[in-house]
Amino acid sequence: MFSTALIGAAGFSGQETLDRVLAHPELELVALGSDSLAGEPASALDPRLGRNGHGGLPSFVANAEALAAGAELVFCCLDHEAAAALGPPHGAVVVDLSGAHRLAEPSAYAGWYGFSHPGGNEAWCYSLPELAPPTGRLIANPGCYATAALLAIAPLVDAIEPNGVVVDAKSGVSGAGRTLKASSQAAVVLENLVPYKVGSHQHEPEIEQLLGFPVCLVPHLLPVRRGLIATCYVQATEDLRPLLEAAYAASHVVSVLPEGSVPDLARVQGTDAAEIGLFEDRATGRSIVICALDNLGKGAAGQAIQNANLALGLHETAGLRLSGVLV
Amino acid sequence: MFSTALIGAAGFSGQETLDRVLAHPELELVALGSDSLAGEPASALDPRLGRNGHGGLPSFVANAEALAAGAELVFCCLDHEAAAALGPPHGAVVVDLSGAHRLAEPSAYAGWYGFSHPGGNEAWCYSLPELAPPTGRLIANPGCYATAALLAIAPLVDAIEPNGVVVDAKSGVSGAGRTLKASSQAAVVLENLVPYKVGSHQHEPEIEQLLGFPVCLVPHLLPVRRGLIATCYVQATEDLRPLLEAAYAASHVVSVLPEGSVPDLARVQGTDAAEIGLFEDRATGRSIVICALDNLGKGAAGQAIQNANLALGLHETAGLRLSGVLV
Amino acid sequence: MFSTALIGAAGFSGQETLDRVLAHPELELVALGSDSLAGEPASALDPRLGRNGHGGLPSFVANAEALAAGAELVFCCLDHEAAAALGPPHGAVVVDLSGAHRLAEPSAYAGWYGFSHPGGNEAWCYSLPELAPPTGRLIANPGCYATAALLAIAPLVDAIEPNGVVVDAKSGVSGAGRTLKASSQAAVVLENLVPYKVGSHQHEPEIEQLLGFPVCLVPHLLPVRRGLIATCYVQATEDLRPLLEAAYAASHVVSVLPEGSVPDLARVQGTDAAEIGLFEDRATGRSIVICALDNLGKGAAGQAIQNANLALGLHETAGLRLSGVLV
Amino acid sequence: MFSTALIGAAGFSGQETLDRVLAHPELELVALGSDSLAGEPASALDPRLGRNGHGGLPSFVANAEALAAGAELVFCCLDHEAAAALGPPHGAVVVDLSGAHRLAEPSAYAGWYGFSHPGGNEAWCYSLPELAPPTGRLIANPGCYATAALLAIAPLVDAIEPNGVVVDAKSGVSGAGRTLKASSQAAVVLENLVPYKVGSHQHEPEIEQLLGFPVCLVPHLLPVRRGLIATCYVQATEDLRPLLEAAYAASHVVSVLPEGSVPDLARVQGTDAAEIGLFEDRATGRSIVICALDNLGKGAAGQAIQNANLALGLHETAGLRLSGVLV
Repeated sequence: MFSTALIGAAGFSGQETLDRVLAHPELELVALGSDSLAGEPASALDPRLGRNGHGGLPSFVANAEALAAGAELVFCCLDHEAAAALGPPHGAVVVDLSGAHRLAEPSAYAGWYGFSHPGGNEAWCYSLPELAPPTGRLIANPGCYATAALLAIAPLVDAIEPNGVVVDAKSGVSGAGRTLKASSQAAVVLENLVPYKVGSHQHEPEIEQLLGFPVCLVPHLLPVRRGLIATCYVQATEDLRPLLEAAYAASHVVSVLPEGSVPDLARVQGTDAAEIGLFEDRATGRSIVICALDNLGKGAAGQAIQNANLALGLHETAGLRLSGVLV
Repeated sequence: MFSTALIGAAGFSGQETLDRVLAHPELELVALGSDSLAGEPASALDPRLGRNGHGGLPSFVANAEALAAGAELVFCCLDHEAAAALGPPHGAVVVDLSGAHRLAEPSAYAGWYGFSHPGGNEAWCYSLPELAPPTGRLIANPGCYATAALLAIAPLVDAIEPNGVVVDAKSGVSGAGRTLKASSQAAVVLENLVPYKVGSHQHEPEIEQLLGFPVCLVPHLLPVRRGLIATCYVQATEDLRPLLEAAYAASHVVSVLPEGSVPDLARVQGTDAAEIGLFEDRATGRSIVICALDNLGKGAAGQAIQNANLALGLHETAGLRLSGVLV
Repeated sequence: MFSTALIGAAGFSGQETLDRVLAHPELELVALGSDSLAGEPASALDPRLGRNGHGGLPSFVANAEALAAGAELVFCCLDHEAAAALGPPHGAVVVDLSGAHRLAEPSAYAGWYGFSHPGGNEAWCYSLPELAPPTGRLIANPGCYATAALLAIAPLVDAIEPNGVVVDAKSGVSGAGRTLKASSQAAVVLENLVPYKVGSHQHEPEIEQLLGFPVCLVPHLLPVRRGLIATCYVQATEDLRPLLEAAYAASHVVSVLPEGSVPDLARVQGTDAAEIGLFEDRATGRSIVICALDNLGKGAAGQAIQNANLALGLHETAGLRLSGVLV
Repeated sequence: MFSTALIGAAGFSGQETLDRVLAHPELELVALGSDSLAGEPASALDPRLGRNGHGGLPSFVANAEALAAGAELVFCCLDHEAAAALGPPHGAVVVDLSGAHRLAEPSAYAGWYGFSHPGGNEAWCYSLPELAPPTGRLIANPGCYATAALLAIAPLVDAIEPNGVVVDAKSGVSGAGRTLKASSQAAVVLENLVPYKVGSHQHEPEIEQLLGFPVCLVPHLLPVRRGLIATCYVQATEDLRPLLEAAYAASHVVSVLPEGSVPDLARVQGTDAAEIGLFEDRATGRSIVICALDNLGKGAAGQAIQNANLALGLHETAGLRLSGVLV
């Protein structure tokens, strides 16, 4: 059992990570950090945590105290700027779910994230298990849109034109986090579809960094609670299906669907799995690669667990949710 | 007052057209056709039609009978194949909301629509008022996706690369019509986003026909009742904003939003208006043109009324709904 | 034309009232008040207000300034406590959409509304046009749940047992207003149904005041944008249908549906109309009266206009929306 | 391991039951019956069944063949009338998820279910584990509305007035099943709330049978995929909280929430758990008991597994889903 601390646990990704840590056969929660909930019992986050055998959970402490608890594994679910200021504890495996440690170039943060970055990201590895498994103990967990786009496109980089790649992405509202915002109010989101940060979303540079070329990324807010679909448009220079199938042949997490099958958001909601479908456009011959995943699962907490498993030498899928409800 | 007949009135677009005809100051409904509702009162379609001064509505008759009623204006809301087989009544202005008369080339129907077309579309004019106003009395009303894509792209054809244009479109479920389908069941649509007819939707060829080059069109089914957004990706060769603004400067129906403003599905739902926003992608320099409209309004019945107004010499916006609810 | 001022216009009910004032043939907007938007153009509330012939709208001023503009008609869309502190302008017809002037007994406010009321409500008349038309120029406009419950039950008071009346009510999220709240976030509301203020909602005392006996009211928050259904359970002592039909026989706003017909939320959304259905329970013989209306229409702004029309001697339905979209 | 057959597996409750059987540590699927899918692989129902170690699943056979397979446990997910005609296999534990064997009195079926019942229900036991555990091997699994109403009310029967009990129930659309119906189309369900079978729903008589008195039950269709809330109104004659708490003190499935806590649909979706909250109405003193559960979990498949566990002598919660996603 690896002792585990969680900081910034009060948000959606924190709560989802907590949920997976508690269900994980090899992880033991020793510290639960949240500056807003410090002093409260774990059940303040979810009443069910006081029931069903979860009686012995640690109470919330301040993030700094949780960090100092000496855990072997730390999940950081702080916001970008707070995470960037964090001094990672010595010796621990740290998985940062924020964007703070994803971009190699500190100067990129001012433009894409809106804050000045202190630097030091060379100590961190951007880790997307199927494409770039962790190579050290400080792990930058990818963004949800980046995960979907990269799973769809990265295996194809040598077989497509690097110019003109379009990623039209749609995400459920939990991706916007728990912080109160006018744009997340139900009266705005229901019966609506809202394009946002059009052509300027901060997940683009991490996609570009891994692919080696920029893409045109437009996210849209869906009136659904969870789940994300990235519809990716590329110009192929050779047959793409064998490349996709080879990339994920051994994966328990990512499935490439047979010809004609469309990825299904409902099928991946509540899971840490992803589905990819490949189509050819009849009119233009372009290839369309569609990736569906849960923004809080493979797009956040599930991938964080997967990265931690790899860094700790555990089975990659330990504690993951690989199938959800069928209906 | 122009005497008006409606055939195929039992579906969603028929019902929406009926609603606008009844509110139109210059049209008088003389025949209401539906083979499934023949013999029923108009209130069989909507109980409100028996109230609020609509007491004198004609009852439903068979479509053939409605066609033979000698109306000066006929709206045809049949399905594609039935509409293709229709002999338009002599002398009347006919607006066909189906796809039956949109494509100049009859042989295109087998592949895109799945039926063999009898030909004769040269007598019909594909009419999108802001781009191609009606030039005769037989009017092919554009499809909803085509309307959105064309409003966004057609004014720009000489200022963009014709290759690599992507139209990622999202529509509410009323676009799928009233016919029972597994894919339209609420248990499939709710909390979901479903890409469908990926790269093979029948609205592509009418877009291509008007633009002069093909586009890559992928539609997605949204968990909303009404409304459609087309996110269009183009490579500009000159400044696009002046071209868009000039195209719609005189329009009461289509608005080009100021820089930074995002089209709002909620704002166009229940209306016959459309909104267009223009953005530049920070990473690739591509231009993103977003068009929002109501699939049953500007995407169907509203545009049919607008086309009829023009063909009859009425004011273009007579009977149109140009603003909906604010919240 | 009656000169009209609107204060507290930035919220949902303010925006809806503004929308109806602008479309009203006998009202002329002369002052637009909002402390948060003071100094902004009207289009700050809705970009469409700068288009389609609304160019000449007044800009926002502070509420106090709008009140002092000398309008003949004032709509007050402030929150409860602010409205209670308001000194109504001399001579004007004032319609208060808040709860501040609904309850005759000032001491009731501490318990139901959570603030201490200054008194003076004897100068105001609680006005629900079909049941209690305005009798003076200071008008307390009913709450949305109260409107639905009263329309369903008030015509029946002499024909039902006063004990044991249950009102199970369900409302769309716009009823919660535009103020940011955790309970109104889309990630909470979507795919959910939330009972709230169970047995303690502030609309109960105004229902009780008009009926003469208390009811058990439980509201639930629906994952819909607009619309409200109250399912009311009563024990009849005589045949209720003739009483309901007589009550609304002359109404253009409230419809009693024929036996077996169920009120339809979709049919009243975006309108100022209401529908009532009456059913008998097979197992217990209880009567079930269901009322559907739009919480922002007949439940707020529409009823405010209707009350103003009556107080000003205009036609009751001037400026009302009596039918919405059909699909 | 108990050999298990499933018949009528193609519907929602069948699919959910299958999903739980596959995850159950003590059950082994030996036959998968569906007349519509006979001959197809299991993955025809859900593509994921061909992945993730489910490679060895039996293919679909006709229901009669599945029944004849000699399984020790049979789940019957047929429709009511087909299930009533079923001859249960000799010696097996059979859990019937339909309503065919719930009502003791065969003559009740014509009125409530619309078909003539062949009789023989005295061999079956209506089993709701927390209130009436199975007493034989032929088990009638309760309906979803009945489960919610009974969990809320049954422990209170000696402490409430039997007259005037109201059950206002709201369910997600998966409760309506997979069969195509106009009322289940997304364009009808979205942005709507539909009361249906008002005062005449077939779950009333099974509630009445267990309670010993009738209730007034009105179901409403929610625009959510899964989940059900029953808001129950009773007149208490003594303190109800101790009775509720005692009834479920030992339960791992049903939780009674502390005073002031409201059951949360989102918290039980995708699970086999139920939550109950108790409130007192300020105006009338009535008690309000609210039960939330998943209509496909505790309301169908989860309870079927729970009943099977008890009948087979397994741990009651084996294979149940007791917590879902947190967000």
